[in-house]
Amino acid sequence: MKLLRYGPFGQEKPGIIDSDGKLRCLSNVLKDINGQALSPVTLNFISQIDLNTLPLIEEPVRIGSCIADVGKFICIGLNYADHAAESGMAIPNEPEVFSKATSAISGPNDDIIKPKNSEKLDWEVELAIVIGKHASYVDVENAYDYIAGYCICNDVSERNFQLERGSQWDKGKGCDTFGPLGPWLVTKDEVPDPLNLDMWLKVNDTLYQNGNTKTMVFDPAFIVSYLSQFMSLQPGDVISTGTPPGVGLGQTPPVYLKEGDTVTLGIEGLGVQQQVVVDYKKLH
Amino acid sequence: MKLLRYGPFGQEKPGIIDSDGKLRCLSNVLKDINGQALSPVTLNFISQIDLNTLPLIEEPVRIGSCIADVGKFICIGLNYADHAAESGMAIPNEPEVFSKATSAISGPNDDIIKPKNSEKLDWEVELAIVIGKHASYVDVENAYDYIAGYCICNDVSERNFQLERGSQWDKGKGCDTFGPLGPWLVTKDEVPDPLNLDMWLKVNDTLYQNGNTKTMVFDPAFIVSYLSQFMSLQPGDVISTGTPPGVGLGQTPPVYLKEGDTVTLGIEGLGVQQQVVVDYKKLH
Repeated sequence: MKLLRYGPFGQEKPGIIDSDGKLRCLSNVLKDINGQALSPVTLNFISQIDLNTLPLIEEPVRIGSCIADVGKFICIGLNYADHAAESGMAIPNEPEVFSKATSAISGPNDDIIKPKNSEKLDWEVELAIVIGKHASYVDVENAYDYIAGYCICNDVSERNFQLERGSQWDKGKGCDTFGPLGPWLVTKDEVPDPLNLDMWLKVNDTLYQNGNTKTMVFDPAFIVSYLSQFMSLQPGDVISTGTPPGVGLGQTPPVYLKEGDTVTLGIEGLGVQQQVVVDYKKLH
Repeated sequence: MKLLRYGPFGQEKPGIIDSDGKLRCLSNVLKDINGQALSPVTLNFISQIDLNTLPLIEEPVRIGSCIADVGKFICIGLNYADHAAESGMAIPNEPEVFSKATSAISGPNDDIIKPKNSEKLDWEVELAIVIGKHASYVDVENAYDYIAGYCICNDVSERNFQLERGSQWDKGKGCDTFGPLGPWLVTKDEVPDPLNLDMWLKVNDTLYQNGNTKTMVFDPAFIVSYLSQFMSLQPGDVISTGTPPGVGLGQTPPVYLKEGDTVTLGIEGLGVQQQVVVDYKKLH
Protein backbone atom coordinates (compact mmCIF):
# COMPACT_ATOMS: atom_id res chain seq x y z
CA MET A 1 0.00 0.00 0.00
CA LYS A 2 0.99 3.59 -0.63
CA LEU A 3 -0.13 5.67 2.33
CA LEU A 4 0.13 9.44 2.36
CA ARG A 5 -1.09 12.63 3.96
CA TYR A 6 -2.58 15.53 2.03
CA GLY A 7 -3.90 19.02 2.72
CA PRO A 8 -2.51 22.21 4.25
CA PHE A 9 0.50 22.01 6.60
CA GLY A 10 -0.64 21.00 10.07
CA GLN A 11 -4.11 19.96 8.85
CA GLU A 12 -3.19 16.95 6.73
CA LYS A 13 -5.64 14.10 6.26
CA PRO A 14 -4.75 10.45 5.71
CA GLY A 15 -4.97 9.04 2.20
CA ILE A 16 -4.08 6.05 0.05
CA ILE A 17 -3.22 5.57 -3.62
CA ASP A 18 -5.59 3.23 -5.46
CA SER A 19 -4.76 0.82 -8.29
CA ASP A 20 -5.33 3.57 -10.86
CA GLY A 21 -2.85 5.84 -9.08
CA LYS A 22 -5.65 8.06 -7.74
CA LEU A 23 -5.71 9.56 -4.25
CA ARG A 24 -8.44 8.26 -1.95
CA CYS A 25 -9.34 9.70 1.47
CA LEU A 26 -8.84 7.48 4.55
CA SER A 27 -10.36 9.98 7.02
CA ASN A 28 -13.33 7.77 7.77
CA VAL A 29 -11.01 4.88 8.61
CA LEU A 30 -8.07 6.49 10.40
CA LYS A 31 -7.34 9.68 12.27
CA ASP A 32 -3.91 10.04 10.69
CA ILE A 33 -0.96 8.12 9.27
CA ASN A 34 1.05 7.90 12.49
CA GLY A 35 2.62 5.24 14.68
CA GLN A 36 -0.75 3.88 15.80
CA ALA A 37 -1.86 3.39 12.19
CA LEU A 38 1.21 1.28 11.42
CA SER A 39 0.54 -1.69 13.69
CA PRO A 40 0.32 -4.96 11.75
CA VAL A 41 -3.37 -5.24 12.77
CA THR A 42 -4.28 -1.79 11.47
CA LEU A 43 -2.28 -2.18 8.26
CA ASN A 44 -4.00 -5.51 7.65
CA PHE A 45 -7.37 -3.87 8.26
CA ILE A 46 -6.61 -1.11 5.72
CA SER A 47 -5.46 -3.69 3.18
CA GLN A 48 -8.92 -5.34 3.28
CA ILE A 49 -10.77 -2.14 2.33
CA ASP A 50 -12.26 -1.86 -1.16
CA LEU A 51 -10.59 1.40 -2.15
CA ASN A 52 -13.40 2.16 -4.61
CA THR A 53 -15.62 2.82 -1.59
CA LEU A 54 -13.37 5.64 -0.36
CA PRO A 55 -13.86 9.27 -1.47
CA LEU A 56 -11.74 10.26 -4.47
CA ILE A 57 -9.68 13.40 -3.85
CA GLU A 58 -9.28 15.82 -6.71
CA GLU A 59 -5.65 16.65 -7.50
CA PRO A 60 -3.45 18.62 -7.47
CA VAL A 61 -3.42 18.95 -3.70
CA ARG A 62 -0.51 19.60 -1.34
CA ILE A 63 1.13 16.38 -0.12
CA GLY A 64 2.39 16.42 3.48
CA SER A 65 5.02 14.30 5.16
CA CYS A 66 3.84 10.70 4.74
CA ILE A 67 4.07 10.11 8.50
CA ALA A 68 2.76 12.22 11.40
CA ASP A 69 3.78 12.46 15.06
CA VAL A 70 7.32 11.20 14.47
CA GLY A 71 9.00 10.62 17.84
CA LYS A 72 12.54 10.09 16.60
CA PHE A 73 14.10 11.06 13.27
CA ILE A 74 17.35 9.10 13.29
CA CYS A 75 19.94 9.10 10.53
CA ILE A 76 22.80 6.80 9.64
CA GLY A 77 25.88 8.67 8.45
CA LEU A 78 28.41 7.58 5.82
CA ASN A 79 26.48 4.41 4.99
CA TYR A 80 27.62 4.23 1.35
CA ALA A 81 31.32 3.59 0.89
CA ASP A 82 31.69 5.97 -2.06
CA HIS A 83 29.91 8.77 -0.20
CA ALA A 84 32.26 8.37 2.76
CA ALA A 85 35.16 8.72 0.33
CA GLU A 86 33.77 11.88 -1.30
CA SER A 87 33.22 13.36 2.21
CA GLY A 88 36.84 12.68 3.07
CA MET A 89 35.80 10.35 5.91
CA ALA A 90 36.53 6.69 6.61
CA ILE A 91 33.85 4.00 6.26
CA PRO A 92 32.72 3.47 9.85
CA ASN A 93 33.20 0.07 11.53
CA GLU A 94 29.69 0.33 12.89
CA PRO A 95 26.83 2.71 12.02
CA GLU A 96 27.39 6.40 12.68
CA VAL A 97 24.16 7.61 14.30
CA PHE A 98 22.84 11.15 14.48
CA SER A 99 19.45 12.85 14.66
CA LYS A 100 17.44 15.38 12.75
CA ALA A 101 14.99 17.57 14.67
CA THR A 102 11.42 16.36 14.10
CA SER A 103 10.49 20.02 13.49
CA ALA A 104 12.55 19.73 10.28
CA ILE A 105 9.99 17.37 8.73
CA SER A 106 8.12 18.73 5.72
CA GLY A 107 6.14 17.55 2.74
CA PRO A 108 7.92 16.01 -0.27
CA ASN A 109 7.25 19.01 -2.52
CA ASP A 110 7.40 21.82 0.03
CA ASP A 111 9.99 24.56 -0.41
CA ILE A 112 13.39 24.09 1.19
CA ILE A 113 14.10 27.17 3.29
CA LYS A 114 17.71 28.36 2.97
CA PRO A 115 18.46 29.51 6.54
CA LYS A 116 19.98 32.85 7.50
CA ASN A 117 23.77 32.74 7.07
CA SER A 118 23.58 29.51 5.09
CA GLU A 119 26.58 29.18 2.79
CA LYS A 120 26.69 25.46 2.06
CA LEU A 121 23.17 24.08 1.55
CA ASP A 122 23.34 20.50 0.32
CA TRP A 123 21.16 17.54 -0.63
CA GLU A 124 21.10 13.80 0.14
CA VAL A 125 18.61 11.33 -1.36
CA GLU A 126 18.01 8.54 1.18
CA LEU A 127 15.91 5.46 1.77
CA ALA A 128 14.06 5.94 5.07
CA ILE A 129 12.69 3.12 7.22
CA VAL A 130 9.43 3.69 9.12
CA ILE A 131 9.09 1.64 12.31
CA GLY A 132 5.82 -0.23 12.89
CA LYS A 133 6.36 -1.99 16.21
CA HIS A 134 8.14 -1.23 19.51
CA ALA A 135 11.70 -2.56 19.14
CA SER A 136 14.21 -3.18 21.93
CA TYR A 137 17.19 -5.56 21.69
CA VAL A 138 15.94 -7.02 18.41
CA ASP A 139 17.99 -9.66 16.53
CA VAL A 140 18.99 -9.01 12.92
CA GLU A 141 16.99 -12.08 11.79
CA ASN A 142 13.78 -10.65 13.23
CA ALA A 143 14.40 -6.98 12.47
CA TYR A 144 12.16 -6.79 9.37
CA ASP A 145 9.18 -7.60 11.63
CA TYR A 146 9.59 -4.15 13.17
CA ILE A 147 9.59 -2.24 9.88
CA ALA A 148 6.21 -0.97 8.62
CA GLY A 149 7.51 0.41 5.34
CA TYR A 150 9.77 2.83 3.53
CA CYS A 151 9.77 6.33 2.13
CA ILE A 152 12.09 8.82 0.47
CA CYS A 153 13.94 11.30 2.68
CA ASN A 154 15.92 14.26 1.41
CA ASP A 155 18.43 14.65 4.25
CA VAL A 156 18.95 18.35 3.53
CA SER A 157 22.14 19.57 5.21
CA GLU A 158 23.96 22.83 5.80
CA ARG A 159 27.63 21.82 5.69
CA ASN A 160 28.96 24.91 7.43
CA PHE A 161 26.50 24.50 10.32
CA GLN A 162 27.11 20.72 10.37
CA LEU A 163 30.87 20.48 10.10
CA GLU A 164 32.44 23.84 10.94
CA ARG A 165 30.47 24.95 14.01
CA GLY A 166 31.30 22.20 16.53
CA SER A 167 31.83 18.45 16.68
CA GLN A 168 28.17 17.44 16.59
CA TRP A 169 26.14 17.64 13.38
CA ASP A 170 22.70 18.63 14.74
CA LYS A 171 22.95 22.35 13.85
CA GLY A 172 23.31 21.56 10.16
CA LYS A 173 20.79 18.73 9.99
CA GLY A 174 17.74 19.93 11.92
CA CYS A 175 16.83 23.27 10.29
CA ASP A 176 13.17 23.77 9.38
CA THR A 177 12.23 22.04 6.06
CA PHE A 178 15.44 19.94 6.10
CA GLY A 179 13.46 16.69 6.24
CA PRO A 180 11.02 16.20 3.34
CA LEU A 181 9.42 12.74 3.77
CA GLY A 182 7.26 11.04 1.14
CA PRO A 183 5.30 11.31 -1.09
CA TRP A 184 4.22 7.87 0.11
CA LEU A 185 4.88 5.55 2.99
CA VAL A 186 5.11 2.31 0.98
CA THR A 187 4.38 -0.73 3.13
CA LYS A 188 7.15 -3.34 3.16
CA ASP A 189 5.09 -5.95 1.28
CA GLU A 190 5.46 -3.72 -1.81
CA VAL A 191 9.23 -3.40 -1.33
CA PRO A 192 10.35 -7.04 -1.47
CA ASP A 193 14.01 -6.16 -1.99
CA PRO A 194 14.93 -2.87 -0.27
CA LEU A 195 18.56 -3.64 -1.13
CA ASN A 196 18.10 -3.23 -4.87
CA LEU A 197 16.41 0.12 -5.43
CA ASP A 198 17.68 2.70 -7.88
CA MET A 199 17.90 6.17 -6.37
CA TRP A 200 18.72 9.51 -7.97
CA LEU A 201 18.74 13.24 -7.39
CA LYS A 202 18.86 16.18 -9.79
CA VAL A 203 19.45 19.88 -9.15
CA ASN A 204 17.72 21.77 -11.94
CA ASP A 205 18.69 19.70 -15.03
CA THR A 206 21.89 18.16 -13.66
CA LEU A 207 21.88 14.60 -12.33
CA TYR A 208 24.15 14.57 -9.25
CA GLN A 209 23.20 11.34 -7.48
CA ASN A 210 22.59 8.11 -9.36
CA GLY A 211 22.97 5.11 -7.11
CA ASN A 212 21.33 2.00 -5.80
CA THR A 213 20.63 0.79 -2.29
CA LYS A 214 22.71 -2.31 -3.01
CA THR A 215 25.88 -0.38 -2.20
CA MET A 216 24.77 0.33 1.37
CA VAL A 217 27.32 -0.64 4.03
CA PHE A 218 24.76 -1.55 6.74
CA ASP A 219 21.35 -2.79 5.57
CA PRO A 220 17.93 -1.94 7.10
CA ALA A 221 17.70 -5.13 9.20
CA PHE A 222 21.15 -4.56 10.66
CA ILE A 223 20.38 -0.89 11.33
CA VAL A 224 17.12 -1.61 13.17
CA SER A 225 18.76 -4.34 15.25
CA TYR A 226 21.80 -2.16 15.95
CA LEU A 227 19.83 0.93 17.04
CA SER A 228 17.60 -1.21 19.26
CA GLN A 229 20.69 -2.13 21.31
CA PHE A 230 21.01 1.52 22.33
CA MET A 231 17.44 2.78 22.57
CA SER A 232 13.93 1.51 22.03
CA LEU A 233 12.26 2.35 18.73
CA GLN A 234 8.59 3.28 18.64
CA PRO A 235 5.98 2.98 15.87
CA GLY A 236 6.27 6.03 13.66
CA ASP A 237 9.99 6.53 14.26
CA VAL A 238 11.86 7.28 11.02
CA ILE A 239 15.40 6.07 10.28
CA SER A 240 17.08 7.53 7.21
CA THR A 241 19.75 5.13 6.01
CA GLY A 242 22.38 7.32 4.38
CA THR A 243 23.10 8.65 0.92
CA PRO A 244 25.04 7.40 -2.12
CA PRO A 245 27.74 9.57 -3.73
CA GLY A 246 27.02 12.82 -5.52
CA VAL A 247 26.26 15.36 -2.82
CA GLY A 248 27.24 19.00 -3.34
CA LEU A 249 30.10 18.78 -0.85
CA GLY A 250 31.63 15.99 -2.94
CA GLN A 251 31.85 17.98 -6.19
CA THR A 252 35.12 19.56 -7.37
CA PRO A 253 34.72 22.39 -6.58
CA PRO A 254 31.76 21.91 -4.20
CA VAL A 255 28.32 22.94 -5.49
CA TYR A 256 25.70 24.25 -3.08
CA LEU A 257 22.03 25.07 -3.43
CA LYS A 258 20.98 28.65 -4.07
CA GLU A 259 17.66 30.46 -4.06
CA GLY A 260 15.48 29.36 -6.97
CA ASP A 261 17.12 25.96 -7.49
CA THR A 262 14.83 23.00 -8.02
CA VAL A 263 15.77 19.67 -6.42
CA THR A 264 14.12 16.54 -7.82
CA LEU A 265 14.78 13.11 -6.33
CA GLY A 266 13.35 9.63 -6.48
CA ILE A 267 13.73 6.05 -5.34
CA GLU A 268 12.43 3.12 -7.40
CA GLY A 269 8.89 2.27 -6.24
CA LEU A 270 8.77 5.03 -3.64
CA GLY A 271 7.84 8.00 -5.84
CA VAL A 272 9.43 11.36 -6.57
CA GLN A 273 9.97 14.53 -4.52
CA GLN A 274 10.53 18.04 -5.89
CA GLN A 275 11.54 21.07 -3.84
CA VAL A 276 12.32 24.69 -4.69
CA VAL A 277 14.92 26.52 -2.60
CA VAL A 278 13.68 29.80 -1.06
CA ASP A 279 15.53 32.25 1.13
CA TYR A 280 14.48 32.50 4.79
CA LYS A 281 13.80 36.21 4.28
CA LYS A 282 10.75 35.36 2.20
CA LEU A 283 9.19 33.96 5.38
CA HIS A 284 10.35 36.43 8.03
CA MET B 1 4.03 27.84 39.83
CA LYS B 2 5.30 24.30 40.21
CA LEU B 3 3.61 22.14 37.57
CA LEU B 4 4.04 18.39 37.45
CA ARG B 5 2.61 15.13 36.17
CA TYR B 6 1.73 12.18 38.38
CA GLY B 7 0.45 8.64 38.00
CA PRO B 8 1.58 5.50 36.18
CA PHE B 9 3.95 5.81 33.20
CA GLY B 10 2.00 6.76 30.08
CA GLN B 11 -1.13 7.64 32.08
CA GLU B 12 0.12 10.71 33.93
CA LYS B 13 -2.28 13.45 34.97
CA PRO B 14 -1.44 17.15 35.32
CA GLY B 15 -0.91 18.56 38.80
CA ILE B 16 0.31 21.60 40.68
CA ILE B 17 1.97 22.15 44.06
CA ASP B 18 -0.02 24.41 46.41
CA SER B 19 1.34 26.87 48.99
CA ASP B 20 1.48 24.11 51.61
CA GLY B 21 3.59 21.93 49.30
CA LYS B 22 0.66 19.59 48.62
CA LEU B 23 -0.14 18.06 45.24
CA ARG B 24 -3.38 19.22 43.62
CA CYS B 25 -4.98 17.73 40.51
CA LEU B 26 -5.29 19.94 37.40
CA SER B 27 -7.23 17.37 35.32
CA ASN B 28 -10.39 19.45 35.27
CA VAL B 29 -8.45 22.43 33.95
CA LEU B 30 -5.92 20.94 31.51
CA LYS B 31 -5.50 17.75 29.52
CA ASP B 32 -1.78 17.56 30.28
CA ILE B 33 1.33 19.62 30.99
CA ASN B 34 2.52 19.93 27.40
CA GLY B 35 3.44 22.64 24.93
CA GLN B 36 -0.15 23.83 24.61
CA ALA B 37 -0.43 24.30 28.37
CA LEU B 38 2.64 26.55 28.44
CA SER B 39 1.34 29.46 26.39
CA PRO B 40 1.43 32.74 28.35
CA VAL B 41 -2.40 32.86 28.20
CA THR B 42 -2.85 29.37 29.66
CA LEU B 43 -0.18 29.87 32.33
CA ASN B 44 -1.86 33.12 33.33
CA PHE B 45 -5.21 31.33 33.50
CA ILE B 46 -3.77 28.63 35.79
CA SER B 47 -2.16 31.27 38.00
CA GLN B 48 -5.62 32.76 38.71
CA ILE B 49 -7.07 29.49 40.05
CA ASP B 50 -7.72 29.19 43.78
CA LEU B 51 -5.73 25.99 44.34
CA ASN B 52 -7.86 25.13 47.39
CA THR B 53 -10.69 24.35 44.95
CA LEU B 54 -8.66 21.62 43.22
CA PRO B 55 -8.73 17.98 44.40
CA LEU B 56 -5.93 17.11 46.85
CA ILE B 57 -3.94 14.04 45.75
CA GLU B 58 -2.78 11.67 48.44
CA GLU B 59 0.96 10.99 48.36
CA PRO B 60 3.19 9.12 47.80
CA VAL B 61 2.37 8.77 44.14
CA ARG B 62 4.70 8.24 41.17
CA ILE B 63 5.88 11.52 39.61
CA GLY B 64 6.29 11.50 35.82
CA SER B 65 8.35 13.73 33.57
CA CYS B 66 7.15 17.27 34.28
CA ILE B 67 6.48 17.85 30.58
CA ALA B 68 4.64 15.67 28.04
CA ASP B 69 4.80 15.46 24.24
CA VAL B 70 8.32 16.88 24.03
CA GLY B 71 9.15 17.51 20.37
CA LYS B 72 12.86 18.20 20.76
CA PHE B 73 15.19 17.33 23.63
CA ILE B 74 18.26 19.41 22.87
CA CYS B 75 21.41 19.54 24.96
CA ILE B 76 24.30 21.95 25.18
CA GLY B 77 27.64 20.23 25.62
CA LEU B 78 30.66 21.43 27.60
CA ASN B 79 28.86 24.54 28.86
CA TYR B 80 30.79 24.78 32.14
CA ALA B 81 34.47 25.57 31.76
CA ASP B 82 35.60 23.22 34.54
CA HIS B 83 33.56 20.34 33.13
CA ALA B 84 35.14 20.81 29.70
CA ALA B 85 38.54 20.61 31.41
CA GLU B 86 37.70 17.39 33.29
CA SER B 87 36.44 15.88 30.00
CA GLY B 88 39.75 16.72 28.33
CA MET B 89 37.94 18.98 25.83
CA ALA B 90 38.35 22.67 24.99
CA ILE B 91 35.70 25.24 25.94
CA PRO B 92 33.75 25.71 22.72
CA ASN B 93 33.70 29.12 20.99
CA GLU B 94 29.96 28.69 20.46
CA PRO B 95 27.48 26.21 21.96
CA GLU B 96 28.03 22.54 21.17
CA VAL B 97 24.58 21.18 20.33
CA PHE B 98 23.40 17.58 20.44
CA SER B 99 20.13 15.74 21.03
CA LYS B 100 18.73 13.15 23.35
CA ALA B 101 16.00 10.84 22.04
CA THR B 102 12.61 11.90 23.41
CA SER B 103 12.01 8.21 24.21
CA ALA B 104 14.74 8.59 26.86
CA ILE B 105 12.51 10.86 28.96
CA SER B 106 11.44 9.43 32.31
CA GLY B 107 10.14 10.54 35.69
CA PRO B 108 12.51 12.17 38.19
CA ASN B 109 12.50 9.18 40.52
CA ASP B 110 12.18 6.34 38.00
CA ASP B 111 14.91 3.72 37.82
CA ILE B 112 17.84 4.33 35.49
CA ILE B 113 18.18 1.26 33.26
CA LYS B 114 21.81 0.23 32.73
CA PRO B 115 21.77 -0.91 29.09
CA LYS B 116 23.17 -4.19 27.79
CA ASN B 117 26.94 -3.92 27.33
CA SER B 118 27.07 -0.68 29.31
CA GLU B 119 30.51 -0.21 30.86
CA LYS B 120 30.62 3.51 31.58
CA LEU B 121 27.27 4.73 32.88
CA ASP B 122 27.57 8.32 34.05
CA TRP B 123 25.54 11.21 35.50
CA GLU B 124 25.14 14.94 34.78
CA VAL B 125 22.96 17.32 36.82
CA GLU B 126 21.67 20.06 34.51
CA LEU B 127 19.35 23.04 34.44
CA ALA B 128 16.81 22.47 31.64
CA ILE B 129 14.87 25.21 29.88
CA VAL B 130 11.29 24.50 28.78
CA ILE B 131 10.13 26.53 25.77
CA GLY B 132 6.73 28.25 25.97
CA LYS B 133 6.42 30.00 22.61
CA HIS B 134 7.42 29.31 18.99
CA ALA B 135 10.90 30.78 18.53
CA SER B 136 12.68 31.50 15.25
CA TYR B 137 15.52 34.01 14.82
CA VAL B 138 15.02 35.43 18.29
CA ASP B 139 17.32 38.17 19.66
CA VAL B 140 19.15 37.57 22.94
CA GLU B 141 17.35 40.56 24.51
CA ASN B 142 13.95 38.99 23.86
CA ALA B 143 14.88 35.36 24.43
CA TYR B 144 13.44 35.08 27.95
CA ASP B 145 9.98 35.76 26.47
CA TYR B 146 10.17 32.32 24.84
CA ILE B 147 11.01 30.45 28.03
CA ALA B 148 8.07 29.03 30.03
CA GLY B 149 10.15 27.72 32.91
CA TYR B 150 12.86 25.40 34.13
CA CYS B 151 13.33 21.90 35.48
CA ILE B 152 16.09 19.54 36.55
CA CYS B 153 17.47 17.12 33.96
CA ASN B 154 19.82 14.27 34.73
CA ASP B 155 21.63 13.95 31.39
CA VAL B 156 22.46 10.28 31.97
CA SER B 157 25.22 9.19 29.58
CA GLU B 158 27.00 5.99 28.57
CA ARG B 159 30.55 7.16 27.83
CA ASN B 160 31.58 4.13 25.81
CA PHE B 161 28.50 4.42 23.57
CA GLN B 162 28.93 8.22 23.41
CA LEU B 163 32.65 8.61 22.80
CA GLU B 164 34.12 5.32 21.61
CA ARG B 165 31.54 4.12 19.06
CA GLY B 166 31.64 6.89 16.44
CA SER B 167 31.93 10.66 16.19
CA GLN B 168 28.35 11.51 17.13
CA TRP B 169 27.13 11.24 20.72
CA ASP B 170 23.51 10.08 20.18
CA LYS B 171 24.13 6.41 20.96
CA GLY B 172 25.30 7.22 24.48
CA LYS B 173 22.78 9.95 25.24
CA GLY B 174 19.42 8.61 24.08
CA CYS B 175 19.05 5.25 25.84
CA ASP B 176 15.72 4.60 27.57
CA THR B 177 15.50 6.30 31.01
CA PHE B 178 18.52 8.54 30.25
CA GLY B 179 16.42 11.70 30.59
CA PRO B 180 14.70 12.10 33.97
CA LEU B 181 12.90 15.49 33.94
CA GLY B 182 11.33 17.12 37.00
CA PRO B 183 9.94 16.77 39.61
CA TRP B 184 8.47 20.16 38.70
CA LEU B 185 8.35 22.50 35.78
CA VAL B 186 8.89 25.73 37.70
CA THR B 187 7.56 28.74 35.80
CA LYS B 188 10.12 31.45 35.15
CA ASP B 189 8.45 34.00 37.46
CA GLU B 190 9.61 31.79 40.36
CA VAL B 191 13.19 31.63 39.04
CA PRO B 192 14.14 35.31 38.93
CA ASP B 193 17.86 34.58 38.60
CA PRO B 194 18.51 31.35 36.68
CA LEU B 195 22.21 32.26 36.69
CA ASN B 196 22.63 31.86 40.44
CA LEU B 197 21.27 28.45 41.36
CA ASP B 198 23.19 25.93 43.44
CA MET B 199 23.19 22.46 41.89
CA TRP B 200 24.51 19.18 43.25
CA LEU B 201 24.55 15.43 42.66
CA LYS B 202 25.36 12.52 44.95
CA VAL B 203 25.94 8.85 44.17
CA ASN B 204 24.98 6.90 47.28
CA ASP B 205 26.55 9.02 50.06
CA THR B 206 29.26 10.68 48.00
CA LEU B 207 28.80 14.24 46.73
CA TYR B 208 30.30 14.34 43.22
CA GLN B 209 28.84 17.51 41.72
CA ASN B 210 28.55 20.74 43.71
CA GLY B 211 28.25 23.73 41.43
CA ASN B 212 26.22 26.76 40.58
CA THR B 213 24.68 27.93 37.31
CA LYS B 214 26.73 31.13 37.57
CA THR B 215 29.73 29.31 36.04
CA MET B 216 27.84 28.56 32.80
CA VAL B 217 29.66 29.61 29.64
CA PHE B 218 26.52 30.39 27.59
CA ASP B 219 23.43 31.51 29.52
CA PRO B 220 19.78 30.50 28.82
CA ALA B 221 18.93 33.66 26.84
CA PHE B 222 21.97 33.24 24.63
CA ILE B 223 21.23 29.54 24.13
CA VAL B 224 17.60 30.10 23.09
CA SER B 225 18.58 32.88 20.71
CA TYR B 226 21.47 30.83 19.31
CA LEU B 227 19.44 27.67 18.70
CA SER B 228 16.68 29.67 17.06
CA GLN B 229 19.16 30.74 14.35
CA PHE B 230 19.40 27.09 13.27
CA MET B 231 15.93 25.68 13.85
CA SER B 232 12.58 26.80 15.19
CA LEU B 233 11.76 25.92 18.78
CA GLN B 234 8.25 24.83 19.71
CA PRO B 235 6.33 25.05 23.00
CA GLY B 236 7.26 22.01 25.08
CA ASP B 237 10.76 21.66 23.63
CA VAL B 238 13.36 21.01 26.35
CA ILE B 239 16.92 22.37 26.26
CA SER B 240 19.33 21.00 28.85
CA THR B 241 22.10 23.52 29.42
CA GLY B 242 25.12 21.44 30.40
CA THR B 243 26.68 20.17 33.58
CA PRO B 244 29.21 21.50 36.10
CA PRO B 245 32.32 19.45 37.04
CA GLY B 246 32.14 16.19 38.93
CA VAL B 247 30.89 13.61 36.46
CA GLY B 248 32.14 10.02 36.72
CA LEU B 249 34.34 10.33 33.65
CA GLY B 250 36.19 13.20 35.33
CA GLN B 251 37.24 11.26 38.45
CA THR B 252 40.76 9.81 38.85
CA PRO B 253 40.30 6.97 38.13
CA PRO B 254 36.85 7.32 36.50
CA VAL B 255 33.85 6.15 38.55
CA TYR B 256 30.80 4.72 36.81
CA LEU B 257 27.34 3.73 37.99
CA LYS B 258 26.64 0.12 38.85
CA GLU B 259 23.48 -1.81 39.57
CA GLY B 260 21.96 -0.80 42.90
CA ASP B 261 23.55 2.65 43.07
CA THR B 262 21.31 5.53 44.12
CA VAL B 263 21.73 8.87 42.36
CA THR B 264 20.30 11.95 44.11
CA LEU B 265 20.44 15.40 42.53
CA GLY B 266 18.95 18.81 43.02
CA ILE B 267 18.90 22.40 41.84
CA GLU B 268 17.99 25.29 44.16
CA GLY B 269 14.25 25.97 43.85
CA LEU B 270 13.63 23.20 41.33
CA GLY B 271 13.36 20.21 43.68
CA VAL B 272 15.23 16.93 44.00
CA GLN B 273 15.42 13.76 41.86
CA GLN B 274 16.42 10.30 43.06
CA GLN B 275 17.06 7.29 40.82
CA VAL B 276 18.18 3.73 41.46
CA VAL B 277 20.30 1.99 38.81
CA VAL B 278 18.88 -1.35 37.59
CA ASP B 279 20.29 -3.74 35.02
CA TYR B 280 18.44 -4.05 31.70
CA LYS B 281 18.08 -7.79 32.34
CA LYS B 282 15.55 -7.04 35.09
CA LEU B 283 13.23 -5.75 32.39
CA HIS B 284 13.84 -8.18 29.51
